[in-house]
Amino acid sequence: MPQKVRIALDAMGGDFGASVVIPGAAISLRRHPDTEFLLFGDRAQIEAQLARYPAMQAASRVVHTDVAVGMHEKPSQALRRGRKTSSMWLAIDAVKKGEAGVAISAGNTGALVAMARFCLRMLPGIDRPALAAIWPTMRGDSVVLDLGATIGGDARHLTALAVMGSAMASVLFGLERPTVGLLNIGVEEMKGHEEIREAAELLRAMNLPQLDYIGFVEGDGIGRGAADVIVTEGFSGNIALKAAEGTARQLAEYLRGAMARTLRSRIGYLFAKKAFQALRDKMDPGKSNGSVLLGLNGIVVKSHGGTDAEGFAYAVDGGYEMVRYDLLTKINQMLNRDGSALASAQTAQEAVS
Amino acid sequence: MPQKVRIALDAMGGDFGASVVIPGAAISLRRHPDTEFLLFGDRAQIEAQLARYPAMQAASRVVHTDVAVGMHEKPSQALRRGRKTSSMWLAIDAVKKGEAGVAISAGNTGALVAMARFCLRMLPGIDRPALAAIWPTMRGDSVVLDLGATIGGDARHLTALAVMGSAMASVLFGLERPTVGLLNIGVEEMKGHEEIREAAELLRAMNLPQLDYIGFVEGDGIGRGAADVIVTEGFSGNIALKAAEGTARQLAEYLRGAMARTLRSRIGYLFAKKAFQALRDKMDPGKSNGSVLLGLNGIVVKSHGGTDAEGFAYAVDGGYEMVRYDLLTKINQMLNRDGSALASAQTAQEAVS
Repeated sequence: MPQKVRIALDAMGGDFGASVVIPGAAISLRRHPDTEFLLFGDRAQIEAQLARYPAMQAASRVVHTDVAVGMHEKPSQALRRGRKTSSMWLAIDAVKKGEAGVAISAGNTGALVAMARFCLRMLPGIDRPALAAIWPTMRGDSVVLDLGATIGGDARHLTALAVMGSAMASVLFGLERPTVGLLNIGVEEMKGHEEIREAAELLRAMNLPQLDYIGFVEGDGIGRGAADVIVTEGFSGNIALKAAEGTARQLAEYLRGAMARTLRSRIGYLFAKKAFQALRDKMDPGKSNGSVLLGLNGIVVKSHGGTDAEGFAYAVDGGYEMVRYDLLTKINQMLNRDGSALASAQTAQEAVS
Repeated sequence: MPQKVRIALDAMGGDFGASVVIPGAAISLRRHPDTEFLLFGDRAQIEAQLARYPAMQAASRVVHTDVAVGMHEKPSQALRRGRKTSSMWLAIDAVKKGEAGVAISAGNTGALVAMARFCLRMLPGIDRPALAAIWPTMRGDSVVLDLGATIGGDARHLTALAVMGSAMASVLFGLERPTVGLLNIGVEEMKGHEEIREAAELLRAMNLPQLDYIGFVEGDGIGRGAADVIVTEGFSGNIALKAAEGTARQLAEYLRGAMARTLRSRIGYLFAKKAFQALRDKMDPGKSNGSVLLGLNGIVVKSHGGTDAEGFAYAVDGGYEMVRYDLLTKINQMLNRDGSALASAQTAQEAVS
């Protein structure tokens, strides 16, 4: 029998804390009964929730702490106040100590990135962590990063994102040599910020065996599935993700409105109910909830702060799979294949510039 | 009888040139019979199309030129080769000479921005033009800018965008004091690039009578209609717009697929056909085609390069309305209200920094 998957949860994270985290984890547990949970946070609140989910209760161990990171705390403030004591820190620390395979939090992104970086440290050759998510496209799924772990970045940072993203795509989608595109505002060579053009030159010059750099991709290329991996710095990545989510939510709203309007359309709705359900599922940004922090000596998954239990369950599913497929070891192997891809990025950049 | 609206068209612009521009303009002419067209480009190609649309032919005058700007030419190259001779330049120049109220092109954005700037010159106090579009939201329409006229920009540039965008929203939506939000990756004060935080301070400090600055808006706030005007520099604006368009196209595709799948859903589709049509219209990025170049001594409308005749017609409709409602004069009045808003931006910035 394979080992159980152990997941550390920041039970206080997100807009609703334990009242979403526990019911969400309970949903995921039904799908993956071989999960065990470490729950960090206020014991009273956690146990009140656990009482409603006996299977979840049986699979969980609670570690009490009074300290929770606020959703609007500055990262520096959160670190000062919550290092070694907050539910967020303790969940991450459980990964460091090997007590859990992954930490999951719906808390403050900035604080989570800062704590993960501080507690777990970066992988060799990687300067900054990146938030990567699986983006459903017309051609299947793509990995998109950075979705806002940090903002800005030079050509070398973009190259590191390309290497990490393609490692993730290789592992999750079983691809030998994923295609990689750089997000830009045009596909022509002369467009966009200088660092993006430089990164393009670098990726071409390096011609890495583990990824196939295909050029620039515009915003609408993400949904079209123009590349297996879409690389951008965290500001525009976050804007792209949220603009797409907002549009999906807006269209789901239109759909509801259009179907409710007339008797004929209501009858139509009854006939087509299942098809609609499938469509709604595809339109629901919550279904792809959960982005993973790459570049660290350990796996941390970030859930949307405002998600419901259903949405949080998807983030837990994601974390489960990362551990089950041993994502981190495989990413490390990728990063080290053919010596060090990122060390060669350094050399290639010196050659290019 | 009011004066006719005169529109100058770059008949060679876009991926399909005259074969989309003329049929598109003909559709718009049916909706606005008080339009006259000046058509710039290859006479043979233009007249071959006009022969198919007698009403359009009667409302048009053709000005021949051999020179057309290529879709992938660099702006500098386009200017060198096409200044004073290309169909794009001549259409813009017709606005400068007062022969037309607006120039419309589906050509190369970079070249269009460069030529418009060179030919028409900037309004006093404005350094760089901006591409603004009307974005359909859950709460009505919003103005979003800059969608990629230029990239990057300091706090003063963002403030100028806020002033121009709110002038456009006032005129088009009839609002006394439109709400303005700055696009950012979080709503907390400490998030995002420094220039965005600075612009926020500036807008608060200026407390302009013509706009109501409400704070940061995230990517998903655009579709939610969080503000009447959403301000961002051109790189992230372009990424946001295209990510949203890509998502809309993707979901329209899912909808088609979901409805075709089973007999029951096909029957449902027949019953709900009209509701679907309405939904498809809302999902169609082409329906909001046409962004306007703000900040110039004249109106220039940019259509998507890859649009069809239906889409181009929406860009022409947009241009028609800008002239009919005398957008430019009204924007100028807004910019000059209470002395010069932008001169006071300069002063406020010095005070803040």
